[in-house]
Amino acid sequence: MSHSEICRFPTPALDQLPEDIRTRILAVQEKAGFIPNVFLSLACRPAEFRAFFAYHDAVMHRDGSTLTPTEKEMIIVATSAKNGCQYCVVAHGAMLRIFSKEPLLADQIAINYLHAPLTDKQRAMLDFSTKLCRTPELIGDEDLETLKAQGFDDDDILDISGITAFFGLSNRMAIVTGLQANPEFYAMARVPKDK
Amino acid sequence: MSHSEICRFPTPALDQLPEDIRTRILAVQEKAGFIPNVFLSLACRPAEFRAFFAYHDAVMHRDGSTLTPTEKEMIIVATSAKNGCQYCVVAHGAMLRIFSKEPLLADQIAINYLHAPLTDKQRAMLDFSTKLCRTPELIGDEDLETLKAQGFDDDDILDISGITAFFGLSNRMAIVTGLQANPEFYAMARVPKDK
Amino acid sequence: MSHSEICRFPTPALDQLPEDIRTRILAVQEKAGFIPNVFLSLACRPAEFRAFFAYHDAVMHRDGSTLTPTEKEMIIVATSAKNGCQYCVVAHGAMLRIFSKEPLLADQIAINYLHAPLTDKQRAMLDFSTKLCRTPELIGDEDLETLKAQGFDDDDILDISGITAFFGLSNRMAIVTGLQANPEFYAMARVPKDK
Amino acid sequence: MSHSEICRFPTPALDQLPEDIRTRILAVQEKAGFIPNVFLSLACRPAEFRAFFAYHDAVMHRDGSTLTPTEKEMIIVATSAKNGCQYCVVAHGAMLRIFSKEPLLADQIAINYLHAPLTDKQRAMLDFSTKLCRTPELIGDEDLETLKAQGFDDDDILDISGITAFFGLSNRMAIVTGLQANPEFYAMARVPKDK
Amino acid sequence: MSHSEICRFPTPALDQLPEDIRTRILAVQEKAGFIPNVFLSLACRPAEFRAFFAYHDAVMHRDGSTLTPTEKEMIIVATSAKNGCQYCVVAHGAMLRIFSKEPLLADQIAINYLHAPLTDKQRAMLDFSTKLCRTPELIGDEDLETLKAQGFDDDDILDISGITAFFGLSNRMAIVTGLQANPEFYAMARVPKDK
Amino acid sequence: MSHSEICRFPTPALDQLPEDIRTRILAVQEKAGFIPNVFLSLACRPAEFRAFFAYHDAVMHRDGSTLTPTEKEMIIVATSAKNGCQYCVVAHGAMLRIFSKEPLLADQIAINYLHAPLTDKQRAMLDFSTKLCRTPELIGDEDLETLKAQGFDDDDILDISGITAFFGLSNRMAIVTGLQANPEFYAMARVPKDK
Repeated sequence: MSHSEICRFPTPALDQLPEDIRTRILAVQEKAGFIPNVFLSLACRPAEFRAFFAYHDAVMHRDGSTLTPTEKEMIIVATSAKNGCQYCVVAHGAMLRIFSKEPLLADQIAINYLHAPLTDKQRAMLDFSTKLCRTPELIGDEDLETLKAQGFDDDDILDISGITAFFGLSNRMAIVTGLQANPEFYAMARVPKDK
Repeated sequence: MSHSEICRFPTPALDQLPEDIRTRILAVQEKAGFIPNVFLSLACRPAEFRAFFAYHDAVMHRDGSTLTPTEKEMIIVATSAKNGCQYCVVAHGAMLRIFSKEPLLADQIAINYLHAPLTDKQRAMLDFSTKLCRTPELIGDEDLETLKAQGFDDDDILDISGITAFFGLSNRMAIVTGLQANPEFYAMARVPKDK
Repeated sequence: MSHSEICRFPTPALDQLPEDIRTRILAVQEKAGFIPNVFLSLACRPAEFRAFFAYHDAVMHRDGSTLTPTEKEMIIVATSAKNGCQYCVVAHGAMLRIFSKEPLLADQIAINYLHAPLTDKQRAMLDFSTKLCRTPELIGDEDLETLKAQGFDDDDILDISGITAFFGLSNRMAIVTGLQANPEFYAMARVPKDK
Repeated sequence: MSHSEICRFPTPALDQLPEDIRTRILAVQEKAGFIPNVFLSLACRPAEFRAFFAYHDAVMHRDGSTLTPTEKEMIIVATSAKNGCQYCVVAHGAMLRIFSKEPLLADQIAINYLHAPLTDKQRAMLDFSTKLCRTPELIGDEDLETLKAQGFDDDDILDISGITAFFGLSNRMAIVTGLQANPEFYAMARVPKDK
Repeated sequence: MSHSEICRFPTPALDQLPEDIRTRILAVQEKAGFIPNVFLSLACRPAEFRAFFAYHDAVMHRDGSTLTPTEKEMIIVATSAKNGCQYCVVAHGAMLRIFSKEPLLADQIAINYLHAPLTDKQRAMLDFSTKLCRTPELIGDEDLETLKAQGFDDDDILDISGITAFFGLSNRMAIVTGLQANPEFYAMARVPKDK
Repeated sequence: MSHSEICRFPTPALDQLPEDIRTRILAVQEKAGFIPNVFLSLACRPAEFRAFFAYHDAVMHRDGSTLTPTEKEMIIVATSAKNGCQYCVVAHGAMLRIFSKEPLLADQIAINYLHAPLTDKQRAMLDFSTKLCRTPELIGDEDLETLKAQGFDDDDILDISGITAFFGLSNRMAIVTGLQANPEFYAMARVPKDK
C-alpha cells in the first residue's frame, strides 16, 4: 500500500514497528478487518503513538463514565465536523452509526446538529462541546451552569471536555498529515439493524 | 490549600495519589520550588494525568527535534493567547522568558506576535501554528509549502503541529477546570540575566 | 404520512394539488421510486413551487453549459455544507455519487473540500462558489480573473454563480421549513459501480 | 448605451429579445420612465430571466400576504446591505422610500437597522431575516418561536423567508455581474410627500 | 427641540454653553443653515467637546496633507459604514457628495466600496483604512508596504490612519449616544452640479 | 536614541519641540523617571499631540467621574488586548498594577477577562467596553440597559464609552506607528505592596 493512500507523509511497514505498537495494530486489524489509517500515520513516532492512544483510552473508556458510547461519538462527530476533519467525521460517523443503530444520525450531526433529532440534554452537550472546540476563550461559568441544569455533573463535564479536547488534538494531527479515512468507514452500518 | 485557589473543582491531597503521580509531582516541586497547579488539577484522574504528561513529554522532549526550547515556548504562548488560556500563557510565558533570556518577548508574543521581534522563520512558524490552532479547517498544502520555503522539514512540521495540537487540548482542559496560574509564574525571569 | 417526517409545516395531499404540480411530482416518484420531500414541502404554495423548479431547471439544465453534472453537484454539496443544509447535502450528495461514480467524493466535499481529491480547476470553482455563497460582499474582479485563469469563460461563471445563488435560496427555504432528507438518499450509490 | 454602464457583461438589444421578455421590459419602462438595469443584465438568459421574475412575483405579490409593501422592502434593504449589494440596496431603498413615504428610513436601515425607528415587530422581522441571510446554519426552532411571539404566523414566516432567500439569490447575481444601480434610483422619493 | 430628535441623552440649551463652544456652534449654524447634531450631543461635556473638535481639525485640516477633501471623506464613509454608524455615514456621505461633485459615490462606498468606481490608489487607501478600522490587530509591515507601492508616503499613511482612528472614536460615541443624523444631510448634493 | 527603539517612524529631538510639548514631556519624565514612547511618537505632529492628550485628560480625569482609576485601567487593558496593541496593554497594564495593587490582575485581564477575578459590575463594564470596541455596530438599547441594571448611570456610560473610544484611537495609532512599549513598563509593580 502506497503512503499516498494513507496520508501526506511516509508510513512505516508493520514489521519495522516496536512490538507493542505492532501488537495493538494487529489487534485492531483482527477486530475491524482492516487497519484504520490513523494507526499507520502515527506509528512513525512511537512515543506520540503511545501517548495518543493512552489518552484516547483514558477519555473514551473511563470506568464509571455515565456518557454512553453513542453520546461520546456524537461529540466527536459534531466537533470534528466544525474543524473540517475528514478522517474523524468519517471514521467516528461509522462508530456513531454502529453504536446508535441509527443510520442517518451521523450525517445529520456532521452537517448541522441543530437539525438532528436530539434530546434537549444531548443538544446542550453538543452546544457546549462545539463552543469549547471552536471558541474556548468564550467558555465561562454560565456554560457549566447550563450543562448542570440539564443534569450533567462535574464528572460528566470533565468527560465531555476531555473528549472534545482530545479530538481537537486528533483533528489537527489528521489535518496536518492529510490523513485519509479508509474507504471501509464510509459505507459502514448504513443499513439499520434490529434494535 | 483550598481548591478555589487552584481550579473550579476539588483537587486531591498528595498522600491520596498513586505512587507514580505523587513522585512526579514531588520531583517538580523540588525543582521549581512550588507545585504548578496543572499537576494538581489533573491528578484526580490518574489515567488522564499519565496520558497528558506522556503526550507533553513526547512533543516537548522528542529526541532529534531541531526546534529550540525557546521556539517551542513561542508556539505555546502564541496559540494559548489566541485561545484565551490564562494558565498556559502565564506559565509558559515564564518558561519563554527563562529559555530565551529575553524578559519582554513572552508578553509581546502573547499580546500580538505580529509586533514581536521575530525572524522571518519564527514568524512563519507562528503564522502556521496559530492558523492550525484557530482554523484547522483552512490548513492546506500551501501552508506546508510556506513552512518548507522557510527551511522547515517534515519532522519540524510534525513537531510544530504536535505542540500546537497538544496545547490546544491543554488550553481547553485548563479553561473548563478554571485553572489558575500560580502567582510565582507571573514575575519569573522578568529581570534579564547574562546571556 | 405525517408532516413531521417531511418538514416543520403541514404538507398537502397529492390529490389536492394543481394538475401540473401533481404531474411533476408523480413523474419524479416514478423515476426515483419515492417523492423527494422538497416537492411536498413546496407544494403548498403553487406559484413558488413553479418558480422554484423553473429556476432549478434553468440553472441545472441550461443548453450549452460546459459544466458536467458532477461539477454542478460538487457546487451544490460544497455550498450547502457551508450553509448547514441537511436536505441539500444529503440529497445532492446522493446525486454527486451517482454522477461521479465516486462513492466517497460527496462526503469528502461536504466535510471539507480542501481535503477532497479535486483538480485545480475544480478547486478554483469551489473556492469561488463557497466565497460567493458565504461572503458575497467580498467578491471582486480578482475572483473572476482567478476563474478565467483556470479556463472558465463568462458563461461558465454565470453557470457557477447561478447554481450557487439558486441553492443558497434552496438551503434557506429548507432550513426554515425544517425539511428532512428522505432516508433513501443517505445510502444511495455508496457502492461503486463500473465506470 | 454601452454595457459598461449596466454591468460587467454585454447586454442584449431590446429588439433581439424574445417577445415576452421585451414586453415585460417595455411595460416596466413605461411605468418607471427608465429600464432598471437588472432587466437588461438578466435578459441574455431567457429561461433564468423568466424564472427570476416568476419567483420575484411569487414572493412579493402573493395573494393573502399580510406583510405590507413597506415591510417587504425593509427586508430587502436590510439583507441586501448585509450582502453588500449596491443594486438591491439602491433600487429597493427607493422602493422603500416610495412605499413608506419616509425619506430617511431606507438609508437608516441600510446603514444599521438597529438604529432605525422600527416597531418591536419590525425589529424581530429584520433580526430573523438578517440571521437567515447571513448565518442560515444557525436558524433553529427558537428563531421561529421569537417571530411567533411577535404575532407572525406560519404564512408570515414563509413570506419573510421567501423574500430573504430570493433576494439573497438576487444579490449574488447582481454582485457577480457587477450590476450598477440606475442613477434614477438614488434620488428617488427623497423629498417627503403628504402622507 | 426635544432631545429625542438628537440623541439618547439630554442636550444643553445653547445659552447654557461656555462661550467658545457656543461660538463654534453658531458659526457652524451660520455656514450650514442648521446645527449638526454631533455638536449638541457632545456639548454637555465641554472638555471632551473641545478635544474632539481639536482632534477633528488636526486630522482633517493638517497643513501640507496631500489627501484631497474627497479622499478624506471616502475614508470616513467607508470606515463608518463598516462600524454601522448612521450619523457619520449620512453626514459625511453628504460631505463626500459635495466635495466630489459625484452624487452617487457616497452611497456606493457606504454599501460596498469594492463595487464603487475608485482608482487603484483609492482602493488601496480604503483597503488599508477599513482593515485598520475593523481588525487593527492584523495590521503589519506588509500593509504599509502595499500603501507605499501605490505612492503613499509616511505622512500620507499617518493622515489616513489618523482619520480612520479619529472617526472610529467618533462612530463609537455616536452609537452609544444614539446620535441621529439631521434630516438635512440625507438629501444634500444629490443633484449633480457643474464640475 | 535611535528611532527604531521607539517606533517605525523618526521621532523629533526634545529641543526641536514646541515649548508646551517639551514641557509636558519633561514633566512626565520627571515623574516617571523615563519618557513613555507614546509622547515621542506623537510629538512630530504638534496639533495631533495636543488634541490627543487633551482628549486623554478629558476622559481619564473628568471631575466627578465615579469610575476608579483601577476601573478605567481595566477598560484600557481589556480593550487594548482585543485590539492587539502592545504599547497600551503593557503601559496600562503597569498602571493597572499600580492603581489596583494587584500584581496579577493586569495579565489576567489582558489574556481573558472572563477568567479574571472581577465583580459582576466590573464584568458588565468590560462586556460592554469590549463589545463597543470590537463590534460597535451591534450596540443597542439593551446593552445600555444591562449596564444600568448593574448600577451604572448615564454619566458612567459616557465615561466608559469615552475611554473605550479614545483608546481605540490610541491603539490604532500605536499599531500603525509600530510603537514599542518602554521596557520599564513590563516589570513595574509586579511585587505587591502594602494595601
